[in-house]
Amino acid sequence: MHGSERRLAERTAIATVCLSGTLEDKLAAAAAAGFDGVEVFEPDLVASPLSPGEVRVRCADLGLAIELYQPFRDPDSTDPDRFAASLRRAERKFDVMTALGVDTVLVCSSVSPDAVTDVDRLAEQLHTLAERAGARGLRLAYEALAWGTFVNTYERSWEVVARADHPALGLCLDSFHILSRGSDPAGIAAIPGEKLFFLQLADAPHLSMDVLQWSRHHRLFPGQGSFDLPAFLAPVLAAGYSGPLSLEVFNDVFRQSDPTRTAVDARRSLLALAEAVAARVPALGAGPGAPPPPRLGGHAFTELGVDDGGGPQVAAALAALGFTRTGHHRSKPVDLWECGDARVLLNTTADHAGAAAITALGIESADPVASARRAEALCAPVLRHPHAADEADLAAVTAPDGTEVFFCRTDTTSGWRTDFAPTGSAPGPDHGNTGPAITCIDHVGLTQPFDHFDEAVLFYRSVLGLRPESATEVAPPFGLVRHRGVRDAGVRIALSVALLRRGEWAPGVAAPQYVAFATDDVLATARAARDAGAPLLAIPDNYYDDLDARLAPDPARLAAMRELGVLCDRDEHGEYLHVSTEVLGGRVFFQLVQRVGAYDGYGTADAPVRMAAHRRLRSVRSRPRRP
Amino acid sequence: MHGSERRLAERTAIATVCLSGTLEDKLAAAAAAGFDGVEVFEPDLVASPLSPGEVRVRCADLGLAIELYQPFRDPDSTDPDRFAASLRRAERKFDVMTALGVDTVLVCSSVSPDAVTDVDRLAEQLHTLAERAGARGLRLAYEALAWGTFVNTYERSWEVVARADHPALGLCLDSFHILSRGSDPAGIAAIPGEKLFFLQLADAPHLSMDVLQWSRHHRLFPGQGSFDLPAFLAPVLAAGYSGPLSLEVFNDVFRQSDPTRTAVDARRSLLALAEAVAARVPALGAGPGAPPPPRLGGHAFTELGVDDGGGPQVAAALAALGFTRTGHHRSKPVDLWECGDARVLLNTTADHAGAAAITALGIESADPVASARRAEALCAPVLRHPHAADEADLAAVTAPDGTEVFFCRTDTTSGWRTDFAPTGSAPGPDHGNTGPAITCIDHVGLTQPFDHFDEAVLFYRSVLGLRPESATEVAPPFGLVRHRGVRDAGVRIALSVALLRRGEWAPGVAAPQYVAFATDDVLATARAARDAGAPLLAIPDNYYDDLDARLAPDPARLAAMRELGVLCDRDEHGEYLHVSTEVLGGRVFFQLVQRVGAYDGYGTADAPVRMAAHRRLRSVRSRPRRP
Repeated sequence: MHGSERRLAERTAIATVCLSGTLEDKLAAAAAAGFDGVEVFEPDLVASPLSPGEVRVRCADLGLAIELYQPFRDPDSTDPDRFAASLRRAERKFDVMTALGVDTVLVCSSVSPDAVTDVDRLAEQLHTLAERAGARGLRLAYEALAWGTFVNTYERSWEVVARADHPALGLCLDSFHILSRGSDPAGIAAIPGEKLFFLQLADAPHLSMDVLQWSRHHRLFPGQGSFDLPAFLAPVLAAGYSGPLSLEVFNDVFRQSDPTRTAVDARRSLLALAEAVAARVPALGAGPGAPPPPRLGGHAFTELGVDDGGGPQVAAALAALGFTRTGHHRSKPVDLWECGDARVLLNTTADHAGAAAITALGIESADPVASARRAEALCAPVLRHPHAADEADLAAVTAPDGTEVFFCRTDTTSGWRTDFAPTGSAPGPDHGNTGPAITCIDHVGLTQPFDHFDEAVLFYRSVLGLRPESATEVAPPFGLVRHRGVRDAGVRIALSVALLRRGEWAPGVAAPQYVAFATDDVLATARAARDAGAPLLAIPDNYYDDLDARLAPDPARLAAMRELGVLCDRDEHGEYLHVSTEVLGGRVFFQLVQRVGAYDGYGTADAPVRMAAHRRLRSVRSRPRRP
Repeated sequence: MHGSERRLAERTAIATVCLSGTLEDKLAAAAAAGFDGVEVFEPDLVASPLSPGEVRVRCADLGLAIELYQPFRDPDSTDPDRFAASLRRAERKFDVMTALGVDTVLVCSSVSPDAVTDVDRLAEQLHTLAERAGARGLRLAYEALAWGTFVNTYERSWEVVARADHPALGLCLDSFHILSRGSDPAGIAAIPGEKLFFLQLADAPHLSMDVLQWSRHHRLFPGQGSFDLPAFLAPVLAAGYSGPLSLEVFNDVFRQSDPTRTAVDARRSLLALAEAVAARVPALGAGPGAPPPPRLGGHAFTELGVDDGGGPQVAAALAALGFTRTGHHRSKPVDLWECGDARVLLNTTADHAGAAAITALGIESADPVASARRAEALCAPVLRHPHAADEADLAAVTAPDGTEVFFCRTDTTSGWRTDFAPTGSAPGPDHGNTGPAITCIDHVGLTQPFDHFDEAVLFYRSVLGLRPESATEVAPPFGLVRHRGVRDAGVRIALSVALLRRGEWAPGVAAPQYVAFATDDVLATARAARDAGAPLLAIPDNYYDDLDARLAPDPARLAAMRELGVLCDRDEHGEYLHVSTEVLGGRVFFQLVQRVGAYDGYGTADAPVRMAAHRRLRSVRSRPRRP
């Protein structure tokens, strides 16, 4: 297992508690996602009609090793009767493990008031337990819970295990318990590798709350949160840990999401983590073999699916924004619209009936084929588009929300543009505008399905190599919305999700998506667009009165912003001016945005005002239709 | 306003931030619920197309006073330029207030790093602001945010306000900011009443987390959380506060729920709070005038709505449990089934087609008419049932989940039973069972709609006078479920809600409801029921192996439990044995339960095993139907 031939994600495992459903559902999902093994979480087994022997067979049939049985709680006690009961309980659980065919059990440090707080006595009790386990060919992986009564750091758990000195007793290290307390994992490298019986990996956002609640509800898969897991994993591997990379993630959303989806998300997180560690410390072994992410070069195009109703409305808005129709697909009902380096495809194939939606993102990749190979290696569903012999073979994958992501090059003669027959029109700006116009796509705003928000962040981070920004939350009129951008130099995708929207009151389940076009002078570009008939969204006067009170902008500029419905966010880096169109064809709108100075956000603070204005329009327009 | 004629909830108000929707939605909802006034939350105004003057007119039309404009943040600064900007900002907001016709603005203590931390200088800056406000006939209510940089206790805010000594500067007290920090509100009584400009009320569950996040997401209406609000309100009123009782509740669920419902819930909370304070300190004034809750005497009956498919299935299960059909309603298709003091009505009117469901709870009340009057005074929707001249006029209200709650008496000759023509059968137990049988209804389990869980708790607490128990959460296979019981000596209702269930994976949106019947010997009663054909739910062997490991019950008893599917919870007070039937007619099941010792819960820890077993059965049974 050691040396240069080692692969860091050679054995991956997942605790059944990470996944929703029955034990049978969970095992099937783990196997389908390509995991090599599982940790069997006791409550999943207890609720299952499968006997331990049947679970063993099921796992074998699925090609899954059972790597760990967990958890065994409160092993020690200052009360001799309670410790005797603990030994009895352990023997019963050893019976279960033997039937399951698993040799290691996770033993948690006690959280009870009767926890032993004398290291010698605790070591003695664990030694007794280990003696029982060893006699049956089993072993105990002792873990310091971050909220353990006495043992709550890995340093202390190691002190106790070293003192107990029994071959059937070793450590379980859990990244959450260690990193949530701010412990330095570097010291792990000094622990003998053969005493590291098991490793559990979990990420989490930084939260200021009770650590138990944080642990039980808000863990995430590696790469979705804020922990530096490569820095955690490196010393564990350096110590000689040779067991599986295993995930133990308690998460309220994953607990209720489709487990087949969650398992793929989980496995992707381990592959990306192994890659990151291999890149940082090559001596520890090779990564899982995905090609590194090719350099991205910005948004090549954004495709909207439109129907006969929405299509003309969207096309008219694009024309008013200065776009021209420059091409038509050679074999499909798809038009290419351009303004500067901003490109929009309007796709009118029948399956987009109902409402306009963003169906695909074209991302400039220095090596589209390598991008697609990487995506496939990271468990992304690769799209095989039928295409004519003389058309470009576009490399594409499906993002968690169903949006297709094309890796492509605009600057080659064999790229995606060759699929479009030129109309003869030159790219916009079109309406006699000699002033500043749209230059390119600044970002795309995608509302995510609730169950798949964190999955989407990890997808874009790992598959495309984008960098997740910190999450922010805003409170629009109909319930909280979380925003999180993923980006690199040229590509920005603004992800958002309604945090709690349910029931029949809150409207707008199909929250609109948008494409934001960059301009160097939003006031001039917006004025030209409005004069050409672009349906710019009206913003209440109250917003501008408040803006004046808060930021005291130049009065003439404020008047222009008020006239055009331009919103303004300001932070210590600069300013962000943005204006939206009305929602077009059901679910899509456009933005014109201008970044001043080093402003690097998305104007999220103004989102509630924008959302209220969009919503109001919808109410106003739907009113006459009522009986 | 003072003296014996004072009523404690004479003026009620609600901050618009408590409610979902646009400002217009919120104002309409507040007025419809009977509030006298509102606090206008600035972001609601900023996002509104109504000018401040139009909002003023709208409120006047709705009969709503605008009691407060809020919030004005970070008033002071160690940086003279920033303080000058703050003064400019304040003047603009004074313009808005004048247009709105509101004279008081909430000024929050600064959370900025440039907050003034010298009491004299801070008092001087607030004096300057107050001078500006006073010159325009306005006043500032200064509030210590619990996370303020320097001012974060009411004691310090009062110190600053006293030092500033300006007639246009007073205090705003917020129960959350004070109680979340564990401050003793008793000292408020010493503050001159005329300096208490405003009072904001909010409850909250005890949570161990960052106080800002706790405040912004988890506040509740009074009576829904864990704060002792009567003890908070008493010294405020004793100090001479004469403004409105106003609610400021930031809550993620209320932010996205139907505001007309939330507003009624909110107003009920204030009425119940005023009643509690009046009962505790009569000198402070009279309560809102609802009659006190009459003594309740247990579950008179539970009514199930069934259709032609489910009806026979439910009836057969009742018969097997030992019930007999003792009566038939004189004018409606409703049968009465009895066993001991347990009574179940099976209602087959057409509107219950689809799935069996609990449609009504009959609660024994010492004074049904007073119970109904109280419910009406506390904004509960009173049901007017059509009934024949010779039938009982049942007092009933609708609970938040739509269940009808009847207040009734079983022990009178004019009570609800007179509506039923006797069949001639004596009440069960019926199947030759001479041993222990069902004695009465122990509790009813009702799954709540997500948006209305806390509303339901307050409804049962205030309207019926039940006592909410502490909430617990469990993790069944398809996502977290929260449980909270409400009860008195004889009545227990177990409320539950799926915390996060969304999307297409998680099944069981129509989670089953149940009626739990008490017995003194669950093993004997369950055995007799099973032998009579009751469809008892099969529980996996793994559960009993784990039970043996955990609790080491007597082997013969364990074998009987295993045979019958009896679950067992044990705590320091006693033991709870419970067995469920399969789900009958779509959405309802029955339980037999036995309380041993002083066990006072609902076996919630076993709910995941029970839910997995119910779910599995559903999967198994639905399988053959698949194509």
